Amino acid sequence: MSGSQPASRWVGLDVGGTKVLAGLVDEAGRVVRSVRLSSREAAGDADALEDVLTRAVELVCDGVRPDAVGLAAAGFVDADGERIAFAPHLPWRDDAVRSRLSRRWGVSVALENDATCATWAEVEHGALTGIDQGVLVTVGTGIGGGVVMGGAVVRGAGGMAGEFGHTRVVPDGRACPCGLRGCWEQYASGTALVARAGRSHERGPSVAEAARAGDPDAKAAFDEVGTWLGIGVANLVAVLDPAVVVVGGGVAEAGDLLLGPARQAVATHLVGAGHRAVPPLVPARHGENAGMVGAAVLARRLAGRS
Amino acid sequence: MSGSQPASRWVGLDVGGTKVLAGLVDEAGRVVRSVRLSSREAAGDADALEDVLTRAVELVCDGVRPDAVGLAAAGFVDADGERIAFAPHLPWRDDAVRSRLSRRWGVSVALENDATCATWAEVEHGALTGIDQGVLVTVGTGIGGGVVMGGAVVRGAGGMAGEFGHTRVVPDGRACPCGLRGCWEQYASGTALVARAGRSHERGPSVAEAARAGDPDAKAAFDEVGTWLGIGVANLVAVLDPAVVVVGGGVAEAGDLLLGPARQAVATHLVGAGHRAVPPLVPARHGENAGMVGAAVLARRLAGRS
Repeated sequence: MSGSQPASRWVGLDVGGTKVLAGLVDEAGRVVRSVRLSSREAAGDADALEDVLTRAVELVCDGVRPDAVGLAAAGFVDADGERIAFAPHLPWRDDAVRSRLSRRWGVSVALENDATCATWAEVEHGALTGIDQGVLVTVGTGIGGGVVMGGAVVRGAGGMAGEFGHTRVVPDGRACPCGLRGCWEQYASGTALVARAGRSHERGPSVAEAARAGDPDAKAAFDEVGTWLGIGVANLVAVLDPAVVVVGGGVAEAGDLLLGPARQAVATHLVGAGHRAVPPLVPARHGENAGMVGAAVLARRLAGRS
Repeated sequence: MSGSQPASRWVGLDVGGTKVLAGLVDEAGRVVRSVRLSSREAAGDADALEDVLTRAVELVCDGVRPDAVGLAAAGFVDADGERIAFAPHLPWRDDAVRSRLSRRWGVSVALENDATCATWAEVEHGALTGIDQGVLVTVGTGIGGGVVMGGAVVRGAGGMAGEFGHTRVVPDGRACPCGLRGCWEQYASGTALVARAGRSHERGPSVAEAARAGDPDAKAAFDEVGTWLGIGVANLVAVLDPAVVVVGGGVAEAGDLLLGPARQAVATHLVGAGHRAVPPLVPARHGENAGMVGAAVLARRLAGRS
């Protein structure tokens, strides 16, 4: 934990299968104070996980009651923002998580998909601020993201828009944990990067270091993964024609190692590229805090309404 | 030409590489009077094509001055609805078609991409009426369509949203006239259907007749093309999560021959299909008149503004 007593009391929580991030976020989207807890031991049990979340809120608030809490979850959130329908790495199954946590904490709670939250962070305080039509693609273990229309993040009719990672790019391609084959995230994610680098890289950043140090396998891995990223982005641009495509997530921290080949692939694979504006690919402002910051943005909007 | 003197004077024009359709359309989206002219001889020359369009307007108006004209064009229309940036089967190249025709005809003219117009026809008077978030996929010689958000058709930042047909579904796949390879429309269009049926079918409808008469090759062609249609629709649903997917265009007139295997493929290839609402695939209301009716809708909206 870090930081002093804040004036603002909007808390953003980001819960995934391995960690919980909690932060107090101010009106400018800055993280005033934050805490990180492991969720690994609790990921199989809803009660245990909710205890971890509660502890994270207590720690980050340090005895002060928050005005509202936003919860970003790595899973499908229903159209009302009430239930987690399904989350492969979390213990909730068609569960009304929002109202239960709101009662437990005695505070308004907003619940949203983590990638949708990350998109809100970029819309309110980042690379999509002031953009009417844009796309965020997050490249981490998998691929997630969000669509922005009219300056707001599109939820979809059932709250499940933005599942870019599971669009099919290769017939009968690589198996995906989602149960399908040939999903985009099997070709353009951190998982694909580490597999392609062909060494004992446990995480993407070490592949980036190796590529910068001149390792040809690591460089080739970024070229291949970046090209696949650009091919999928070209598909999204053909459908949506956004003004800008923002690339976030852990792998995007490699910068032009990833975005260079991706930009080239967009120019090669986008229909009519010679006769239209090709949207720029730009890095996201928010790194691993994006979901947490976006959850706090939704908490602030919730508090503004009540 | 058919019909009697209309009360409404909104004209919709739909111009493609082989024909021009012109219609007077009433407030309920009904075609009061229509005319069809060949554009084949004029498709290489802008002056000649504009003469054909002028003749079509004169014929359908029969001496009465229209209130406004909408022009649906098979090409990229810029963000301002002023210029045709590029149209592979039409003679205009980065050309301010709208204002020139408006001056020539002495009437307000709205210019829009034909698939966007077709989507407006379904939004105002068809299968997307009252739908907040939906998608139209038109299956004809190629694949086009439109995205509906907040009950309006999404144009995209540069006016080029909805180019579904040129999303890549097969790496290094079949060559497409657009210059790319593996485009969806090479697998799920009338062109693909006729090629797959393996006979001397010149047009899709004869494949449908053969399939209904029990021809196994024709039936297999619909199964394969319908499955590819569903795979691409599953990709769109993963991105947008629409409430409904409307399927139009000439090939969709085959009904469940096409939509049956497509629905099955969506259920098979949509991420999380067991944990979410899978949007229904429903037929479009408007057939080959869709672009013309939608162009008239835009003419009416233009007249309402002026």
